[in-house]
Amino acid sequence: MPNPSEPRTYPIDRLREFTERVFQSVGVPEADARQAADVLMASDLRGIDSHGVARLRGYYDLLAAGRINPRPRIRVVRERPGTATVDGDNGLGLVVGPAANAIAMEKADVVGSGWVGVRNTNHFGIAGYYPLQALARGMIGWAMTNASKLVAPVWSADRMLGTNPIAIAFPGKEEPPIVIDMATSAVAYGKIEIAMRQQKPIPEGWAVDASGSPTTNPTAMIEGGSLLPLGGDRERGGHKGYALSAMVDILCAVLTGANWGPFAPPFALRQYIPEQSVGQGIGHFFGALQIDGFLDPDEFGSRIDDWIRTFRASRPAPGTPGVRIPGDPEREAEADRRASGIPLVAAVVDDLRAIARQSGIPFD
Amino acid sequence: MPNPSEPRTYPIDRLREFTERVFQSVGVPEADARQAADVLMASDLRGIDSHGVARLRGYYDLLAAGRINPRPRIRVVRERPGTATVDGDNGLGLVVGPAANAIAMEKADVVGSGWVGVRNTNHFGIAGYYPLQALARGMIGWAMTNASKLVAPVWSADRMLGTNPIAIAFPGKEEPPIVIDMATSAVAYGKIEIAMRQQKPIPEGWAVDASGSPTTNPTAMIEGGSLLPLGGDRERGGHKGYALSAMVDILCAVLTGANWGPFAPPFALRQYIPEQSVGQGIGHFFGALQIDGFLDPDEFGSRIDDWIRTFRASRPAPGTPGVRIPGDPEREAEADRRASGIPLVAAVVDDLRAIARQSGIPFD
Repeated sequence: MPNPSEPRTYPIDRLREFTERVFQSVGVPEADARQAADVLMASDLRGIDSHGVARLRGYYDLLAAGRINPRPRIRVVRERPGTATVDGDNGLGLVVGPAANAIAMEKADVVGSGWVGVRNTNHFGIAGYYPLQALARGMIGWAMTNASKLVAPVWSADRMLGTNPIAIAFPGKEEPPIVIDMATSAVAYGKIEIAMRQQKPIPEGWAVDASGSPTTNPTAMIEGGSLLPLGGDRERGGHKGYALSAMVDILCAVLTGANWGPFAPPFALRQYIPEQSVGQGIGHFFGALQIDGFLDPDEFGSRIDDWIRTFRASRPAPGTPGVRIPGDPEREAEADRRASGIPLVAAVVDDLRAIARQSGIPFD
Repeated sequence: MPNPSEPRTYPIDRLREFTERVFQSVGVPEADARQAADVLMASDLRGIDSHGVARLRGYYDLLAAGRINPRPRIRVVRERPGTATVDGDNGLGLVVGPAANAIAMEKADVVGSGWVGVRNTNHFGIAGYYPLQALARGMIGWAMTNASKLVAPVWSADRMLGTNPIAIAFPGKEEPPIVIDMATSAVAYGKIEIAMRQQKPIPEGWAVDASGSPTTNPTAMIEGGSLLPLGGDRERGGHKGYALSAMVDILCAVLTGANWGPFAPPFALRQYIPEQSVGQGIGHFFGALQIDGFLDPDEFGSRIDDWIRTFRASRPAPGTPGVRIPGDPEREAEADRRASGIPLVAAVVDDLRAIARQSGIPFD
C-alpha cells in the first residue's frame, strides 16, 4: 500500500493534458489553455513545486467565480518603438504574461531592446518562464511581477510588498544557459509554512512578528507577521532587498497603472482583498535585449561559457559542494522529472481530484 | 587646537575647484575635468565618503602613471536604435560613464528606452550619479558597473566578483525622487576596514576567511578572505545576492567585451593586477526609460507621491525610526553638507595635500 505521506509521481504529459482541459472547462480558449498549462508545467519540471499544478486550484476557483476573465482582449494602450504598456483585461497572467513578453521580443527584434509593462493582469507563474522564451530566440530576457503583500520593508511593522521576483537569463554556446529566478524576499513563504508544520524555529533574518519585532517562530510570521526582504535586518543589508522589491513594484505596477504595494490583490479566492484599489489588477514588467546590438552573439556565447567554467573551477568552501551556476538546480530537476515524473504531495493530489469532480475532467 | 581625529570640513566649491584643477594638471581637458569632479562631488555631497574626493588620489596616481588615458576617444562600436556598446578608450570612468549614459538617454528620447554597455573604461564613481542625470531629463535611469574582485559566490572560497552596484531612480511629482544605489555585496568593504581599526568583530553573514569558512574577524576577511554577497550565507539567501552580482558582471563586462569576474582590473595603483586579461578595462551598463512610453508622466509622478506617502505611513517596527524611502539618507546628507561643508578625515586631507605638492595645485 502506498504511504500517504510519500509524494506520488505523475508523468508530465498527463498533468499537462489535465491542466489544459481544466482551463478549457472554465471557458479558456484552447490555445490559451495550452499556453497557461505550459507555464505551470515548466514550474513543475524545474522543481518549483509551489508555482506549478499546485496552484491550479487557485486559478480554477478564480475563473469559476468569474474573478478572472477567461477570454481577455489583451491590448497595447501606450507605445514607443522600444516600449509599451499592455492592458491584460483581467486575464490569466499565464496567458497575458507570454503575450506581453512576445511583444517585448518583437520590439527587441526591431530596435535592439523591448520593455513592456503590464497592468490589469493576474499571477503569471514562475518569473523564470519568460526569460526562457527569450533564450529560445537567442535573446537576453528579463521578467518581474509584483504580488500581494507579505514582506515588511526594513523598520516597518506592516506587510507592504510582495515577494516580487526578478528573473533574467543569458544564453551560453556549449554550456547551458545562466538562468536567474529569485524572489526579493529573504525566503519563500512556503519555507515558513514547512517550519510551522514541523514545529521548528526559523533562522533569524527571515521574518518579523505582528508588532514588527524579529521572530524565529514561524507561527508568529504567519499570524499577522511579515517576511523580511533579501538581506534580512538592516545590519545585514535588508534595506537593499527592500529597495529591489520596491524597484520591482514600481516598474510593474506604479509605471503601468496596476495596484502597487499593499494594494496588490491576492492570488486565491479565500484571501484578504485590500479595501482600496489604486489601479487595475497586478502588474508585470518584461525586457528583451538582442545580443547582436551589443556584441557578436557567437562571441557572447563563448564568453558566457568561459565565465561559467571559470566560476565552476573556483575553490569550494569547506563542507560545501562548491559553486553552483544560477539555473543549475532547476535544470537538474527538469532532467530528473522528465524521466521519472512529477512528485505531488497528498494535499495537491486531493486538490486535483476535487477539481476533477467539479469540472468533470477525469484525473485518476 | 583642532583635534586631529575630528574630521575637518571644507566647502564643496573649494573641493570642486581643487579636483578640477588636479585632473587638468595630469592632462584631462577642462570640460572633462569639470565632469569628473562633478561625479566625485556628488558622492561627497550625498554622504558616500568612500567614493568622492577620498578617491582622487587613486585617479590621480593612475593618470600620472599613464595607466588611464586623459584624452580618450569615446566611440560607439556597435549600435541599434535602442542599444549600443561604447568603447571608453581607457578613459576615466568619471568621463566615459556620463558620455555613455547620455547616449542611453538620447536613445530613450527616440525609441522610448536606451541601453548602453561600456568596455575599456575605469571606475565611474557612485552608480547613483547616473540615474540622477536621467531624473533631470524626466526619465527613469539605471546604472551598473563591475569592479575588481572582493566577493565570494556562495559555496566558493575565492574572490570572484566585485561589489557590483545597481542604481535606479524614479521621479516623484511633489515628493523627492526615489533613488536606489546599492552594492550587491552584503556590506561595503569600508565597514570591514572600520571594524579592523576598532578591533571589533563583524556580524555573521558579512564575510568568509581565506579558506572560505564564515568569519567574524575583520582581519581574516582582509587578509585573503572575501565579502559575502547580499543575503550572506545560503540559508539567508546569499545565492540571490550572488545571482544579482553575476547579472551585473555579465551585462557590464561579458556582454561588452570588458574584463569580467575575477579578471576586472583594480582601481588603485598598488593593488594586485590579475595575471590574465579577458577583455578591455572594466564595464558599465546604463539604461534610460522614457516615462511617457508607459504612462502619462504627470500621472506617474502622482502615483510615485502616493507610493512614498503610503510607505512612510506604515507602522514603525519597535525601536526603529520607521520606514525610510530609498534616497532619503543621501538627500538629507546633501542638504546638510551644502550648508556645512564636506567633512574629511585626516587621512584624506593628507592625501589631498600630497596631491597638492605633486601637482602644484594649492590645497590649504
